[in-house]
Amino acid sequence: MEGVTIKLKKQPKIIGSYAIVGPKEGQGNFGTYFDYVMKNDFFGEDTFEKAERKMMENAIVGVIQKAKLQTSDIDLLISGDLLNQIISSSYAARAFKIPFLGVYGACSTMAESIAVASILVDAGFCKNVVCCTGSHFSTAERQYRFPLELGNQRPPTSQWTVTGAGSSVISLEGEGPKVTEITFGRVIDWGINDVNNMGGAMAPAARDTMLRHFKNTKTKPEDYDLILTGDLGKLGSEILIDLMEDEGIKLGTNYGDCGQMYFKRKQQTLCGASGAGCCATVFNSYIMKKLKEQQYKKILFMPTGALLSTTSTQQGDTIPCTCHAIVIEA
Amino acid sequence: MEGVTIKLKKQPKIIGSYAIVGPKEGQGNFGTYFDYVMKNDFFGEDTFEKAERKMMENAIVGVIQKAKLQTSDIDLLISGDLLNQIISSSYAARAFKIPFLGVYGACSTMAESIAVASILVDAGFCKNVVCCTGSHFSTAERQYRFPLELGNQRPPTSQWTVTGAGSSVISLEGEGPKVTEITFGRVIDWGINDVNNMGGAMAPAARDTMLRHFKNTKTKPEDYDLILTGDLGKLGSEILIDLMEDEGIKLGTNYGDCGQMYFKRKQQTLCGASGAGCCATVFNSYIMKKLKEQQYKKILFMPTGALLSTTSTQQGDTIPCTCHAIVIEA
Repeated sequence: MEGVTIKLKKQPKIIGSYAIVGPKEGQGNFGTYFDYVMKNDFFGEDTFEKAERKMMENAIVGVIQKAKLQTSDIDLLISGDLLNQIISSSYAARAFKIPFLGVYGACSTMAESIAVASILVDAGFCKNVVCCTGSHFSTAERQYRFPLELGNQRPPTSQWTVTGAGSSVISLEGEGPKVTEITFGRVIDWGINDVNNMGGAMAPAARDTMLRHFKNTKTKPEDYDLILTGDLGKLGSEILIDLMEDEGIKLGTNYGDCGQMYFKRKQQTLCGASGAGCCATVFNSYIMKKLKEQQYKKILFMPTGALLSTTSTQQGDTIPCTCHAIVIEA
Repeated sequence: MEGVTIKLKKQPKIIGSYAIVGPKEGQGNFGTYFDYVMKNDFFGEDTFEKAERKMMENAIVGVIQKAKLQTSDIDLLISGDLLNQIISSSYAARAFKIPFLGVYGACSTMAESIAVASILVDAGFCKNVVCCTGSHFSTAERQYRFPLELGNQRPPTSQWTVTGAGSSVISLEGEGPKVTEITFGRVIDWGINDVNNMGGAMAPAARDTMLRHFKNTKTKPEDYDLILTGDLGKLGSEILIDLMEDEGIKLGTNYGDCGQMYFKRKQQTLCGASGAGCCATVFNSYIMKKLKEQQYKKILFMPTGALLSTTSTQQGDTIPCTCHAIVIEA
């Protein structure tokens, strides 16, 4: 058994999307597409953790407004983030009187949120569901790696955690691209234990989900206008291309990776962007715009996640990874 | 908008349940009902974290066997735990080749897992889904409070995190109690910041969900053979009784709390049991047996969760809590 691909019957629509980012992200390749660029990473708060929470609250308010709904129209909030016990999401949920489901899939959390929301809406159990995911460079660095104050040198394989939050509203009413298929990821671990090589760790998980998705749906890369992985970055996406070639599948110019494309070369992020906010902000700005303009008719969105924790590093263990695939059609 | 109560159409069944616990839990009030009692908290591993992971793997294998299925019959694993980045769940998922959804609701995670699984099965998207949740006293203490080696005195309001894991298989095929209704919880925070008073922090969340559930379903306490909260403990469940009385609703002898009932008085756990493994092991042993024997015909299962984190404590913030309600009928 390799896991089913879910085919949604009523095909729920993404009727609203919103992306808020930090200043560095605003200067990146998608800068002009974001809804809001913060002046600095503190966002008027006294800690980065509080800024992360405020970003997520902002993304929830913003997307409800953009979908032309009221908070009272929302049946459920599905959210997750990278901080221990997804605390930014819980605090954001506290600010609204909306029932809340906490989910965790590291940087793949946006896919998990959209998938669960689409299933709930498709089955008729909820009318409007808000999905929100975010990350903050400065909170992630000090939680997963080193405090910024130490000034540690970043190795060439490292990626830059995006400071940003993205959100979507899923509904059967209204206009927007449709969620049509979902393939949930398995946990794949090929033995990488370097917390500064997320791309290398996650590429095998993307390979596993991509192979299963193509097999289950009898599709091939050419059937999609865009195949977009989450945050494999420069190295990870090259590894994925190689791994797929080994399986006889050629990923062409319609393949891209949010992490690889996020920043400009001169921004010195080495292997590119990562973090739960990476694909969340790219998808909910640039990609949604291109889908609405029908420039993309059918995309395969594949956020990847490295499910590591300092707790696992302390156990001397390697990095388990996952990747969920969602088909979205204009 | 106060959130809908979901009424499942096909009413998925819980066709298998399994509970594994530590030795202290085995000596508690539900001792004879558990499937497996470990000889010690290490479970043959060299760290408590590895023991927690092994417990969860064990619970997944055990429940698949008890449901008379093969691993290949399982479409999805939904799991969460208390460790940072739900790492025990991710590692347990790595051991199986089953697609995986990570969820987080602290000690309410069992409810979230069963709810999402039931929705997926009810809508026809999955055939068999395994839900698994667990916690370990020694990993939780050192992550959330103090290392055990310090020998800190436990205040009277403290509860004892259960060392144990519980699992269920949800399916439309086979025999078992049915999941009929779900009310997702909101995040409620009345300002408690004492990590040794989880019951006091969570009682208002249980109140909120209970009030909304009764209102949405037009039911009252007498309509259920059992109303079972998760881990409010001795103090928290008394607070809930008072809070509900203030709303004109009297919780009678059909109300109980897993945390309050778990340990014997002489086991000196002060306010009782807590942890994601608390209601998970009680539900998947004693409660499932009573449902199968028709001693309970209709129960309201309400796992509670304190969504705290050391990250939130460092922000000087209070404890956000939640509670999901599930109606299960024999």
